[in-house]
Amino acid sequence: MKAHTEYLHFRTQDREEFVCITPQLHEILRRTDVREGMMLISAMHITSAVYVNDLEDGLINDIKEWLRGLAPSKDYRHHRTGEDNGEAHLKNLILHHQVIVPITDGQLDLGTWQEVFFADFDGQREKRVIVKVMGA
Amino acid sequence: MKAHTEYLHFRTQDREEFVCITPQLHEILRRTDVREGMMLISAMHITSAVYVNDLEDGLINDIKEWLRGLAPSKDYRHHRTGEDNGEAHLKNLILHHQVIVPITDGQLDLGTWQEVFFADFDGQREKRVIVKVMGA
Amino acid sequence: MKAHTEYLHFRTQDREEFVCITPQLHEILRRTDVREGMMLISAMHITSAVYVNDLEDGLINDIKEWLRGLAPSKDYRHHRTGEDNGEAHLKNLILHHQVIVPITDGQLDLGTWQEVFFADFDGQREKRVIVKVMGA
Repeated sequence: MKAHTEYLHFRTQDREEFVCITPQLHEILRRTDVREGMMLISAMHITSAVYVNDLEDGLINDIKEWLRGLAPSKDYRHHRTGEDNGEAHLKNLILHHQVIVPITDGQLDLGTWQEVFFADFDGQREKRVIVKVMGA
Repeated sequence: MKAHTEYLHFRTQDREEFVCITPQLHEILRRTDVREGMMLISAMHITSAVYVNDLEDGLINDIKEWLRGLAPSKDYRHHRTGEDNGEAHLKNLILHHQVIVPITDGQLDLGTWQEVFFADFDGQREKRVIVKVMGA
Repeated sequence: MKAHTEYLHFRTQDREEFVCITPQLHEILRRTDVREGMMLISAMHITSAVYVNDLEDGLINDIKEWLRGLAPSKDYRHHRTGEDNGEAHLKNLILHHQVIVPITDGQLDLGTWQEVFFADFDGQREKRVIVKVMGA
């Protein structure tokens, strides 16, 4: 089994920001010679998610508003530690922090409308996403 | 590492429909000689999920009703593009679009009550799920 | 590809209990000689989750309270089968039942604050989590 690992680095402008990373994932795959296998894309933080959905601004704003409803800003127990990002942890849990993209015939085997996003809910600081290609 | 890839095709009768696909996954594994590894089952769409839970009609209807509460039908920004399926995207995000089933000793290593489902939230059209077996 | 499989066993004191399992995962990895690959950690039940987040008691209680809000105790259709754990299934679906931890240079490649949890929502009975290390 071949393995190839890279880390994507982010420092978002806004506290909450979603970044489409599919183009970078295609480039990483090109730097390997894996033809069959998978790519793991996993946020290395507990207030950032990685998810797959549509690259459409209206929908991205719908998702942000929807998450604010499900995980509202409020006085969480976690804030007694000095943090103020309780809702960012909960939003991360809803969207999940990782996805696997299958690799078939040397290509990311995504559906037509599937794009991979890094979603930071506590941004404006250094964040990392590990991308690990595994296969043959 | 061996890899074997198949695609399941769906065209549901209803707009929202859940289909238990565990029997098909056992058949796919039988067509390989992988003894140890994993099976990735991933929806190739942004309005369909793949999840693991109980094959029990009452619960399946509970899940559908619960998702309607968390992601209600309403006038989403996304609908300005001509789409009318905003809530289907959000339901997909809650359930996640993929699962990994471990393979041990040539079998899908699922718990007694674990069944794999394809959940379409914007059905009545061609949908695909990729099934990729990887291992030794 | 090398594969190594172990099963973690749990019987929680409380019906709802979260257990940090990162130390056990490090030990399992030490029993293999995999340097590059991944570890799949997957609950074998439909009322238990595996998730990654912060080992901080306040936050853990925030997560429990938040899940009770999103998946309240009530009279679910599923209860007509004699079960009384409908909400446990829904909480499992939100948190997801599995995570993948990348393995780089012989170590679990987790971010500084990332810890892996087993979350039982219908505990006080025997539960299992499969841990499968795959790689080279």
